[in-house]
Amino acid sequence: MYERIEWKFFNMQILKERIRKDGQVLPGNILKVGTFLNHQIDIDLFNELGREFARRFAGVKVTRILTIEASGIGIACIVAQYFNVPVVFAKKAKSRNVSGDMYTTNVKSYTHGTSYDVIVAKDFIKAGDSVLLIDDFLANGCALEGLVELVRSAGATVAGAGIVIEKGFQEGGTRIRALGVRLESLAVIERMSPEEGITFRD
Amino acid sequence: MYERIEWKFFNMQILKERIRKDGQVLPGNILKVGTFLNHQIDIDLFNELGREFARRFAGVKVTRILTIEASGIGIACIVAQYFNVPVVFAKKAKSRNVSGDMYTTNVKSYTHGTSYDVIVAKDFIKAGDSVLLIDDFLANGCALEGLVELVRSAGATVAGAGIVIEKGFQEGGTRIRALGVRLESLAVIERMSPEEGITFRD
Repeated sequence: MYERIEWKFFNMQILKERIRKDGQVLPGNILKVGTFLNHQIDIDLFNELGREFARRFAGVKVTRILTIEASGIGIACIVAQYFNVPVVFAKKAKSRNVSGDMYTTNVKSYTHGTSYDVIVAKDFIKAGDSVLLIDDFLANGCALEGLVELVRSAGATVAGAGIVIEKGFQEGGTRIRALGVRLESLAVIERMSPEEGITFRD
Repeated sequence: MYERIEWKFFNMQILKERIRKDGQVLPGNILKVGTFLNHQIDIDLFNELGREFARRFAGVKVTRILTIEASGIGIACIVAQYFNVPVVFAKKAKSRNVSGDMYTTNVKSYTHGTSYDVIVAKDFIKAGDSVLLIDDFLANGCALEGLVELVRSAGATVAGAGIVIEKGFQEGGTRIRALGVRLESLAVIERMSPEEGITFRD
Protein backbone atom coordinates (compact mmCIF):
# COMPACT_ATOMS: atom_id res chain seq x y z
CA MET A 1 0.00 0.00 0.00
CA TYR A 2 2.83 2.35 0.89
CA GLU A 3 4.61 1.62 -2.35
CA ARG A 4 1.47 2.17 -4.35
CA ILE A 5 0.82 5.61 -2.92
CA GLU A 6 4.41 6.62 -3.32
CA TRP A 7 4.52 5.62 -6.97
CA LYS A 8 1.31 7.46 -7.73
CA PHE A 9 2.64 10.49 -5.93
CA PHE A 10 5.92 10.28 -7.83
CA ASN A 11 4.23 9.95 -11.16
CA MET A 12 1.88 12.78 -10.68
CA GLN A 13 4.65 14.99 -9.37
CA ILE A 14 6.85 14.46 -12.43
CA LEU A 15 4.00 15.69 -14.63
CA LYS A 16 2.80 18.52 -12.39
CA GLU A 17 6.30 19.88 -11.94
CA ARG A 18 6.78 19.83 -15.68
CA ILE A 19 3.50 21.70 -16.23
CA ARG A 20 4.50 24.29 -13.63
CA LYS A 21 7.99 24.66 -15.08
CA ASP A 22 7.18 24.71 -18.80
CA GLY A 23 3.47 25.59 -18.98
CA GLN A 24 2.45 29.08 -20.03
CA VAL A 25 -0.89 30.34 -18.80
CA LEU A 26 -2.43 32.83 -21.20
CA PRO A 27 -5.61 34.90 -20.88
CA GLY A 28 -8.77 33.02 -21.88
CA ASN A 29 -7.95 29.85 -19.94
CA ILE A 30 -5.28 28.82 -22.43
CA LEU A 31 -2.47 26.60 -21.18
CA LYS A 32 0.45 26.20 -23.56
CA VAL A 33 2.42 23.02 -22.98
CA GLY A 34 3.98 22.70 -26.42
CA THR A 35 7.44 22.13 -25.00
CA PHE A 36 6.61 18.56 -23.95
CA LEU A 37 3.01 17.58 -24.76
CA ASN A 38 1.51 18.74 -28.02
CA HIS A 39 4.09 20.30 -30.31
CA GLN A 40 7.38 19.00 -29.02
CA ILE A 41 6.98 15.61 -27.34
CA ASP A 42 9.07 14.34 -24.43
CA ILE A 43 9.08 10.60 -25.10
CA ASP A 44 10.60 9.66 -21.73
CA LEU A 45 7.85 11.57 -19.91
CA PHE A 46 5.22 9.90 -22.13
CA ASN A 47 6.60 6.51 -21.10
CA GLU A 48 6.16 7.51 -17.44
CA LEU A 49 2.57 8.49 -18.19
CA GLY A 50 2.05 5.18 -20.03
CA ARG A 51 3.22 3.26 -16.96
CA GLU A 52 0.87 5.28 -14.77
CA PHE A 53 -2.15 4.64 -17.02
CA ALA A 54 -1.28 0.92 -17.01
CA ARG A 55 -1.22 0.99 -13.20
CA ARG A 56 -4.55 2.82 -12.96
CA PHE A 57 -6.29 0.57 -15.47
CA ALA A 58 -4.64 -2.64 -14.25
CA GLY A 59 -7.11 -5.53 -14.46
CA VAL A 60 -9.37 -3.66 -16.89
CA LYS A 61 -9.93 -5.43 -20.22
CA VAL A 62 -8.57 -3.28 -23.04
CA THR A 63 -8.56 -4.49 -26.66
CA ARG A 64 -7.93 -1.17 -28.39
CA ILE A 65 -6.87 2.39 -27.66
CA LEU A 66 -8.81 5.13 -29.40
CA THR A 67 -7.71 8.75 -29.70
CA ILE A 68 -8.35 11.69 -31.99
CA GLU A 69 -5.97 13.46 -34.34
CA ALA A 70 -3.66 15.18 -34.07
CA SER A 71 -2.19 15.73 -30.61
CA GLY A 72 -3.65 12.58 -29.05
CA ILE A 73 -1.77 10.26 -31.40
CA GLY A 74 1.66 10.45 -29.79
CA ILE A 75 0.53 9.79 -26.23
CA ALA A 76 -1.84 7.03 -27.43
CA CYS A 77 0.99 5.21 -29.26
CA ILE A 78 3.36 5.32 -26.30
CA VAL A 79 0.60 4.30 -23.85
CA ALA A 80 -0.42 1.40 -26.11
CA GLN A 81 2.93 -0.25 -25.47
CA TYR A 82 1.84 -0.85 -21.87
CA PHE A 83 -1.42 -2.50 -22.95
CA ASN A 84 -0.15 -4.44 -25.98
CA VAL A 85 -3.05 -3.33 -28.15
CA PRO A 86 -3.36 -1.41 -31.43
CA VAL A 87 -4.13 2.30 -31.54
CA VAL A 88 -6.94 3.72 -33.65
CA PHE A 89 -7.13 7.44 -34.22
CA ALA A 90 -10.37 9.13 -35.19
CA LYS A 91 -9.94 11.50 -38.11
CA LYS A 92 -11.40 14.93 -38.57
CA ALA A 93 -13.40 14.56 -41.78
CA LYS A 94 -12.63 17.09 -44.49
CA SER A 95 -16.18 16.94 -45.80
CA ARG A 96 -19.41 15.44 -44.57
CA ASN A 97 -18.72 11.73 -44.75
CA VAL A 98 -21.77 9.63 -45.53
CA SER A 99 -19.92 6.41 -46.27
CA GLY A 100 -21.47 3.32 -44.71
CA ASP A 101 -18.00 2.10 -43.85
CA MET A 102 -17.44 4.83 -41.26
CA TYR A 103 -18.78 5.67 -37.85
CA THR A 104 -19.35 9.42 -37.79
CA THR A 105 -20.07 11.86 -35.01
CA ASN A 106 -20.18 15.62 -34.86
CA VAL A 107 -17.96 17.47 -32.40
CA LYS A 108 -18.44 21.11 -31.39
CA SER A 109 -15.32 23.17 -30.86
CA TYR A 110 -15.95 25.98 -28.40
CA THR A 111 -12.41 27.21 -28.95
CA HIS A 112 -12.91 27.86 -32.65
CA GLY A 113 -16.70 28.35 -32.58
CA THR A 114 -17.17 25.64 -35.19
CA SER A 115 -18.08 21.99 -35.40
CA TYR A 116 -16.54 19.13 -37.33
CA ASP A 117 -17.25 15.51 -38.13
CA VAL A 118 -15.05 12.81 -36.69
CA ILE A 119 -14.82 9.43 -38.39
CA VAL A 120 -13.55 5.95 -37.60
CA ALA A 121 -13.61 3.10 -40.10
CA LYS A 122 -16.03 0.39 -38.98
CA ASP A 123 -13.31 -2.22 -39.47
CA PHE A 124 -11.36 -0.87 -36.53
CA ILE A 125 -13.93 -0.89 -33.72
CA LYS A 126 -16.12 -3.94 -33.41
CA ALA A 127 -18.82 -5.18 -31.08
CA GLY A 128 -17.01 -6.88 -28.21
CA ASP A 129 -14.10 -4.45 -28.22
CA SER A 130 -13.22 -2.84 -24.93
CA VAL A 131 -11.82 0.53 -25.85
CA LEU A 132 -9.60 2.77 -23.74
CA LEU A 133 -9.82 6.42 -24.79
CA ILE A 134 -6.60 8.41 -24.50
CA ASP A 135 -6.13 12.13 -25.08
CA ASP A 136 -3.76 14.88 -24.11
CA PHE A 137 -6.34 17.39 -22.87
CA LEU A 138 -9.84 17.41 -21.41
CA ALA A 139 -11.58 20.79 -21.27
CA ASN A 140 -15.25 20.99 -22.25
CA GLY A 141 -15.29 17.31 -23.16
CA CYS A 142 -16.86 17.58 -26.61
CA ALA A 143 -14.19 15.59 -28.44
CA LEU A 144 -14.08 12.88 -25.79
CA GLU A 145 -17.87 12.68 -25.70
CA GLY A 146 -17.75 12.15 -29.47
CA LEU A 147 -15.34 9.25 -29.03
CA VAL A 148 -17.61 7.66 -26.39
CA GLU A 149 -20.51 7.94 -28.83
CA LEU A 150 -18.45 6.36 -31.64
CA VAL A 151 -17.43 3.40 -29.48
CA ARG A 152 -20.96 2.78 -28.25
CA SER A 153 -22.48 3.09 -31.73
CA ALA A 154 -20.11 0.26 -32.72
CA GLY A 155 -21.59 -1.92 -29.99
CA ALA A 156 -18.25 -1.83 -28.16
CA THR A 157 -17.56 -0.93 -24.53
CA VAL A 158 -15.66 2.08 -23.20
CA ALA A 159 -13.06 0.63 -20.84
CA GLY A 160 -12.25 4.09 -19.56
CA ALA A 161 -10.70 7.41 -20.50
CA GLY A 162 -7.12 8.39 -19.71
CA ILE A 163 -6.28 12.08 -19.92
CA VAL A 164 -2.93 13.77 -19.36
CA ILE A 165 -4.21 17.22 -18.33
CA GLU A 166 -7.79 17.95 -17.29
CA LYS A 167 -8.97 21.52 -16.91
CA GLY A 168 -10.98 20.81 -13.79
CA PHE A 169 -12.70 24.19 -13.90
CA GLN A 170 -14.43 23.30 -17.19
CA GLU A 171 -17.30 20.86 -17.50
CA GLY A 172 -15.57 18.01 -19.41
CA GLY A 173 -14.89 15.80 -16.41
CA THR A 174 -18.47 16.02 -15.17
CA ARG A 175 -19.90 15.35 -18.63
CA ILE A 176 -17.73 12.28 -19.24
CA ARG A 177 -18.43 10.78 -15.80
CA ALA A 178 -22.15 11.40 -16.38
CA LEU A 179 -21.86 9.04 -19.35
CA GLY A 180 -20.77 6.30 -16.96
CA VAL A 181 -17.16 6.40 -18.10
CA ARG A 182 -14.30 5.84 -15.67
CA LEU A 183 -12.10 8.88 -16.09
CA GLU A 184 -8.46 9.00 -15.01
CA SER A 185 -6.75 12.37 -15.44
CA LEU A 186 -3.08 12.45 -14.47
CA ALA A 187 -3.11 16.16 -13.65
CA VAL A 188 -6.28 18.10 -12.86
CA ILE A 189 -5.99 21.87 -12.86
CA GLU A 190 -8.27 23.39 -10.23
CA ARG A 191 -7.69 26.95 -11.40
CA MET A 192 -5.13 28.96 -13.31
CA SER A 193 -4.41 32.52 -14.33
CA PRO A 194 -1.49 34.42 -15.86
CA GLU A 195 -1.08 36.27 -12.56
CA GLU A 196 -1.37 33.46 -10.03
CA GLY A 197 -0.17 30.50 -12.07
CA ILE A 198 -1.53 26.98 -11.74
CA THR A 199 -3.24 25.27 -8.80
CA PHE A 200 -3.72 21.52 -9.09
CA ARG A 201 -6.56 19.54 -7.57
CA ASP A 202 -5.29 17.03 -5.00
CA MET B 1 28.09 -8.93 -42.94
CA TYR B 2 25.85 -11.92 -43.40
CA GLU B 3 23.87 -11.04 -40.29
CA ARG B 4 23.46 -7.47 -41.40
CA ILE B 5 21.98 -8.43 -44.75
CA GLU B 6 19.71 -11.00 -43.17
CA TRP B 7 18.34 -8.51 -40.66
CA LYS B 8 17.67 -5.92 -43.31
CA PHE B 9 15.99 -8.58 -45.41
CA PHE B 10 13.91 -9.72 -42.46
CA ASN B 11 12.82 -6.25 -41.55
CA MET B 12 11.84 -5.26 -44.99
CA GLN B 13 9.97 -8.52 -45.48
CA ILE B 14 7.83 -8.03 -42.38
CA LEU B 15 6.68 -4.67 -43.76
CA LYS B 16 6.31 -5.70 -47.40
CA GLU B 17 4.31 -8.78 -46.50
CA ARG B 18 2.03 -6.64 -44.37
CA ILE B 19 1.54 -4.16 -47.23
CA ARG B 20 0.76 -7.01 -49.62
CA LYS B 21 -1.62 -8.69 -47.18
CA ASP B 22 -3.49 -5.63 -45.88
CA GLY B 23 -2.89 -2.92 -48.49
CA GLN B 24 -5.69 -2.01 -50.86
CA VAL B 25 -4.68 -0.54 -54.21
CA LEU B 26 -7.34 1.79 -55.56
CA PRO B 27 -7.51 3.59 -58.92
CA GLY B 28 -5.54 6.86 -59.01
CA ASN B 29 -2.40 5.46 -57.36
CA ILE B 30 -4.06 5.29 -53.96
CA LEU B 31 -2.74 2.74 -51.48
CA LYS B 32 -4.87 2.23 -48.39
CA VAL B 33 -2.92 0.89 -45.43
CA GLY B 34 -5.21 2.08 -42.68
CA THR B 35 -5.25 -1.31 -40.99
CA PHE B 36 -1.72 -0.86 -39.63
CA LEU B 37 -0.15 2.47 -40.64
CA ASN B 38 -2.34 5.54 -40.69
CA HIS B 39 -5.74 4.95 -39.11
CA GLN B 40 -5.23 1.85 -37.00
CA ILE B 41 -1.63 1.55 -35.81
CA ASP B 42 0.22 -1.71 -35.19
CA ILE B 43 2.60 -0.71 -32.40
CA ASP B 44 4.66 -3.93 -32.54
CA LEU B 45 5.29 -3.37 -36.25
CA PHE B 46 6.20 0.28 -35.57
CA ASN B 47 8.77 -0.91 -33.05
CA GLU B 48 10.31 -3.16 -35.72
CA LEU B 49 10.45 -0.17 -38.06
CA GLY B 50 12.03 1.92 -35.29
CA ARG B 51 14.77 -0.66 -34.83
CA GLU B 52 15.40 -0.69 -38.57
CA PHE B 53 15.68 3.12 -38.79
CA ALA B 54 18.09 3.03 -35.84
CA ARG B 55 20.21 0.46 -37.69
CA ARG B 56 20.22 2.48 -40.92
CA PHE B 57 21.05 5.76 -39.21
CA ALA B 58 23.52 4.22 -36.74
CA GLY B 59 26.42 6.61 -36.14
CA VAL B 60 24.47 9.58 -37.49
CA LYS B 61 24.07 12.47 -35.04
CA VAL B 62 20.37 13.00 -34.30
CA THR B 63 19.19 15.57 -31.74
CA ARG B 64 15.53 15.76 -32.73
CA ILE B 65 12.95 13.95 -34.83
CA LEU B 66 10.63 16.12 -36.91
CA THR B 67 7.41 14.94 -38.54
CA ILE B 68 4.16 16.49 -39.74
CA GLU B 69 0.64 16.02 -38.40
CA ALA B 70 -1.30 13.87 -38.35
CA SER B 71 -0.26 10.43 -39.56
CA GLY B 72 3.49 10.94 -39.08
CA ILE B 73 3.16 11.48 -35.32
CA GLY B 74 2.70 7.86 -34.26
CA ILE B 75 5.63 6.45 -36.19
CA ALA B 76 7.84 9.39 -35.15
CA CYS B 77 7.09 8.80 -31.44
CA ILE B 78 7.85 5.09 -31.58
CA VAL B 79 11.00 5.65 -33.68
CA ALA B 80 12.22 8.34 -31.25
CA GLN B 81 12.58 5.70 -28.55
CA TYR B 82 15.49 4.21 -30.52
CA PHE B 83 17.25 7.58 -30.78
CA ASN B 84 16.47 8.94 -27.29
CA VAL B 85 15.47 12.33 -28.64
CA PRO B 86 12.30 14.44 -28.49
CA VAL B 87 9.79 14.52 -31.34
CA VAL B 88 8.56 17.76 -32.85
CA PHE B 89 5.57 17.72 -35.14
CA ALA B 90 4.94 20.47 -37.65
CA LYS B 91 1.38 21.74 -37.56
CA LYS B 92 -0.87 22.59 -40.44
CA ALA B 93 -1.71 26.23 -39.80
CA LYS B 94 -5.39 27.10 -39.72
CA SER B 95 -4.74 30.58 -41.01
CA ARG B 96 -1.75 32.38 -42.46
CA ASN B 97 0.61 32.57 -39.52
CA VAL B 98 2.84 35.62 -39.50
CA SER B 99 4.10 35.23 -35.97
CA GLY B 100 7.80 35.82 -35.55
CA ASP B 101 7.94 32.88 -33.18
CA MET B 102 7.22 30.34 -35.91
CA TYR B 103 9.05 28.94 -38.89
CA THR B 104 6.51 28.74 -41.72
CA THR B 105 6.60 27.06 -45.09
CA ASN B 106 3.94 26.49 -47.72
CA VAL B 107 3.19 22.95 -48.88
CA LYS B 108 1.27 22.09 -52.04
CA SER B 109 -1.08 19.14 -51.89
CA TYR B 110 -1.51 17.56 -55.31
CA THR B 111 -4.02 15.13 -53.83
CA HIS B 112 -6.42 17.85 -52.76
CA GLY B 113 -5.37 20.52 -55.28
CA THR B 114 -4.70 22.98 -52.49
CA SER B 115 -1.81 24.33 -50.47
CA TYR B 116 -1.37 24.92 -46.77
CA ASP B 117 1.09 26.50 -44.39
CA VAL B 118 3.10 24.35 -42.05
CA ILE B 119 4.52 25.82 -38.84
CA VAL B 120 7.06 24.89 -36.20
CA ALA B 121 7.75 27.02 -33.13
CA LYS B 122 11.25 28.47 -33.27
CA ASP B 123 11.90 27.20 -29.75
CA PHE B 124 11.89 23.60 -30.94
CA ILE B 125 14.45 23.65 -33.76
CA LYS B 126 17.68 25.51 -33.16
CA ALA B 127 20.91 26.15 -35.01
CA GLY B 128 23.13 23.17 -34.27
CA ASP B 129 20.28 20.68 -34.18
CA SER B 130 20.68 17.59 -36.33
CA VAL B 131 17.14 16.67 -37.32
CA LEU B 132 15.91 13.30 -38.55
CA LEU B 133 12.71 13.61 -40.58
CA ILE B 134 10.23 10.75 -40.19
CA ASP B 135 6.99 10.23 -42.11
CA ASP B 136 4.67 7.40 -43.04
CA PHE B 137 4.46 8.11 -46.79
CA LEU B 138 6.56 9.71 -49.50
CA ALA B 139 4.81 10.38 -52.81
CA ASN B 140 5.44 13.71 -54.57
CA GLY B 141 7.61 14.90 -51.71
CA CYS B 142 6.01 18.29 -51.11
CA ALA B 143 5.46 17.84 -47.38
CA LEU B 144 8.94 16.41 -46.81
CA GLU B 145 10.51 19.19 -48.89
CA GLY B 146 8.70 21.66 -46.65
CA LEU B 147 10.21 20.04 -43.56
CA VAL B 148 13.71 20.20 -45.09
CA GLU B 149 13.16 23.90 -45.73
CA LEU B 150 11.97 24.49 -42.16
CA VAL B 151 15.00 22.76 -40.67
CA ARG B 152 17.45 24.64 -42.88
CA SER B 153 15.78 28.01 -42.26
CA ALA B 154 16.42 27.35 -38.56
CA GLY B 155 20.13 26.96 -39.27
CA ALA B 156 19.89 23.28 -38.33
CA THR B 157 21.07 20.23 -40.28
CA VAL B 158 18.93 17.51 -41.83
CA ALA B 159 20.42 14.25 -40.52
CA GLY B 160 18.31 12.28 -42.98
CA ALA B 161 14.76 11.26 -43.82
CA GLY B 162 13.18 7.96 -42.82
CA ILE B 163 10.04 6.92 -44.67
CA VAL B 164 7.90 3.85 -44.14
CA ILE B 165 6.42 3.57 -47.65
CA GLU B 166 7.78 5.41 -50.69
CA LYS B 167 5.81 5.47 -53.92
CA GLY B 168 8.86 4.99 -56.10
CA PHE B 169 6.93 5.82 -59.27
CA GLN B 170 6.33 9.39 -58.07
CA GLU B 171 8.99 12.09 -57.94
CA GLY B 172 9.36 12.51 -54.16
CA GLY B 173 12.47 10.35 -53.77
CA THR B 174 14.30 12.14 -56.56
CA ARG B 175 13.33 15.57 -55.23
CA ILE B 176 14.45 14.85 -51.68
CA ARG B 177 17.77 13.32 -52.76
CA ALA B 178 18.35 16.36 -55.02
CA LEU B 179 18.27 18.46 -51.83
CA GLY B 180 21.26 16.49 -50.57
CA VAL B 181 19.21 14.58 -48.01
CA ARG B 182 19.98 10.97 -47.20
CA LEU B 183 16.70 9.16 -47.73
CA GLU B 184 15.92 5.75 -46.25
CA SER B 185 12.59 4.27 -47.28
CA LEU B 186 11.73 0.92 -45.72
CA ALA B 187 9.50 -0.18 -48.59
CA VAL B 188 9.66 1.33 -52.06
CA ILE B 189 6.79 0.57 -54.39
CA GLU B 190 8.01 0.26 -57.99
CA ARG B 191 4.52 0.07 -59.44
CA MET B 192 1.01 -0.85 -58.38
CA SER B 193 -2.46 -1.24 -59.83
CA PRO B 194 -5.78 -2.66 -58.67
CA GLU B 195 -5.41 -5.45 -61.27
CA GLU B 196 -1.78 -6.46 -60.81
CA GLY B 197 -1.20 -5.57 -57.18
CA ILE B 198 2.06 -4.23 -55.78
CA THR B 199 5.63 -4.66 -57.06
CA PHE B 200 8.39 -3.54 -54.68
CA ARG B 201 11.74 -2.17 -55.75
CA ASP B 202 14.60 -4.42 -54.63
